[in-house]
Amino acid sequence: MTVAEAGEAAVLEVLSGAAGDVGDDPVGNGDDAAVLGPADATVVTTDMLVEGTHFRLDLTNWRDLGRRAVAQNVSDVLAMGADCSRILVALAVPGHTEMDQIAHLAAGIHAEAARSGAVVVGGDLTSAGVVVVGVTAIGTLPRGAAPLRIDGARPGDRIGLTGLPGRSAAGLALLLAGHPGGDLAAAHRVPHTPIGSGTAARRAGASALTDVSDGLLRDLSGLTRASGVTADLDAAALPVDPGLRRAAVTLTDGDAGKGKVKGQKQSPGDDDDNAVPAAAVSTHDESDPIISARVMDWILDGGEDHGLLGTFPPGVEVPAEFTLIGTIREGAPGEVTVDGVARTPGGWDSARGAN
Amino acid sequence: MTVAEAGEAAVLEVLSGAAGDVGDDPVGNGDDAAVLGPADATVVTTDMLVEGTHFRLDLTNWRDLGRRAVAQNVSDVLAMGADCSRILVALAVPGHTEMDQIAHLAAGIHAEAARSGAVVVGGDLTSAGVVVVGVTAIGTLPRGAAPLRIDGARPGDRIGLTGLPGRSAAGLALLLAGHPGGDLAAAHRVPHTPIGSGTAARRAGASALTDVSDGLLRDLSGLTRASGVTADLDAAALPVDPGLRRAAVTLTDGDAGKGKVKGQKQSPGDDDDNAVPAAAVSTHDESDPIISARVMDWILDGGEDHGLLGTFPPGVEVPAEFTLIGTIREGAPGEVTVDGVARTPGGWDSARGAN
Repeated sequence: MTVAEAGEAAVLEVLSGAAGDVGDDPVGNGDDAAVLGPADATVVTTDMLVEGTHFRLDLTNWRDLGRRAVAQNVSDVLAMGADCSRILVALAVPGHTEMDQIAHLAAGIHAEAARSGAVVVGGDLTSAGVVVVGVTAIGTLPRGAAPLRIDGARPGDRIGLTGLPGRSAAGLALLLAGHPGGDLAAAHRVPHTPIGSGTAARRAGASALTDVSDGLLRDLSGLTRASGVTADLDAAALPVDPGLRRAAVTLTDGDAGKGKVKGQKQSPGDDDDNAVPAAAVSTHDESDPIISARVMDWILDGGEDHGLLGTFPPGVEVPAEFTLIGTIREGAPGEVTVDGVARTPGGWDSARGAN
Repeated sequence: MTVAEAGEAAVLEVLSGAAGDVGDDPVGNGDDAAVLGPADATVVTTDMLVEGTHFRLDLTNWRDLGRRAVAQNVSDVLAMGADCSRILVALAVPGHTEMDQIAHLAAGIHAEAARSGAVVVGGDLTSAGVVVVGVTAIGTLPRGAAPLRIDGARPGDRIGLTGLPGRSAAGLALLLAGHPGGDLAAAHRVPHTPIGSGTAARRAGASALTDVSDGLLRDLSGLTRASGVTADLDAAALPVDPGLRRAAVTLTDGDAGKGKVKGQKQSPGDDDDNAVPAAAVSTHDESDPIISARVMDWILDGGEDHGLLGTFPPGVEVPAEFTLIGTIREGAPGEVTVDGVARTPGGWDSARGAN
């Protein structure tokens, strides 16, 4: 059954979940607006995913799309030092969309919301030529807790990052080149921000926190610009997923082998994984400059990992999920150096696309 | 200068307005999320407008688009018995969009927010092939105030409506037929919900309240279904904008005169207004069934007027902005009668389009 056949009410019921499942809020789904209970401070953010710009339905699936739409908004709430408690969804889909697809999208939305302990308290549906998933995420801060702003970094602070940067960008590159992409593609489809890492940073005494959506350098530059300071990154301290190097080899070999005859594979299973045979890897040693540059570009400029990037004053005990990657000093606001050399952020500008 | 040339930061600055202009909130624009101050109950809703589905840029303008996107969300907050205090905007536009157009959109957003006493506290920008404006509106309820739910109508309640229904639908019909549309087209471009009417209904003691977005019958049917009651409308009590009759005459004459030779007008000024000459009106008397049916369809099934539809228990003094149009009684949940005859809602289903 399609969305057009089922009608708005049926779609919103699937999207919103059971009407009773709205936590302790005075009004949940099914009314003009949701009404949330008392809060000392409410954290709120909104973001949309647009088909063709942020995702292609041939490279992802409806469940992962739902998870990603929630995850990237939850990440913004975590980045204020809060935890997410409620999700609102505004969805636009073509009328011929199948209700099964909506059910998978809703399952992803609810699964990712549940991971944060959040409930879905509202939805909106409209028709459109492309799929657009708009999410509003809401969290609360306990009484007296100061939000972690983007402008609080001070000279002497250490810079910490959660997760492994560049995985989403590498996964996307593999997918676009026709590889299944494995774990990296999964990381692209659904970014992972550790729940609780924002509150952990706040309780530890972080001075600033933001989430990496547009690229490590670009978002760090935004943080240092807002704070009026310069950041120095230590390349050797950056956490590196070993899969990035394998992905770079796969893609570099693919570039080099574009003239080769295709279609010689006997078994379809040969295409099921992007693992590169040891022989292929061995043609590139650790210092191969093309491979290393590709990996470094992903780490520094790849977007959509949604790791949390924070600054921690001297003496503060940094939570275990943060890897220390550099320091803050006085200097040109917004400048970021890597091993002492200033580097202009690449990454993603939402108005321009890739820089 | 285009959006792609200006970049995301410049666009968000225009959209969000001055960074200092965020009221008393702990964190306003420019961070991962906004942080709102203490609230006893927070009202939150989200809706998106999609180019091609909800608007055409040749039939509206960027300023009115911004106003409409905010107004329809504010209306949902009012419909909970609250007033709107904050607005978040998620915008998708093609990269070739001019910054002047963004400035007009932002001016409309800010003007309509200001009408509600609300401030813009966050924004998101992305690129897309069509324009999508997603708005999240937030309001608060004072301590102890019960939100006006959609399921509170009880037998014996009177039904009240703000504004003049059908104006938006008639305005759209004029625009689609190539008429300038005048006041009705303006009502389509920017719906008007009286600020304060939701809190007035709550203070007066309304039992239920919703906003008319999909059509009077459809939204009233939703209210009565949620409340488990039937509504009886009195056709003679429905408020009628006299412009609806003129619009129906214009469109009916247009239908009848489709074979006529065009292009005989000497002055371009002749096209500047959709006023119909008295002679043309006089060919249709008050009881013309085609005209009357068209007007009645607009009133009962026209969407997007965003009037507030409320129910008021016996003895409650109904606020002046509400016109009484019928009564609630025991009966089949969701049923609505007009002068005693059950009528199936037409109006707008967001999944199916017009029914």
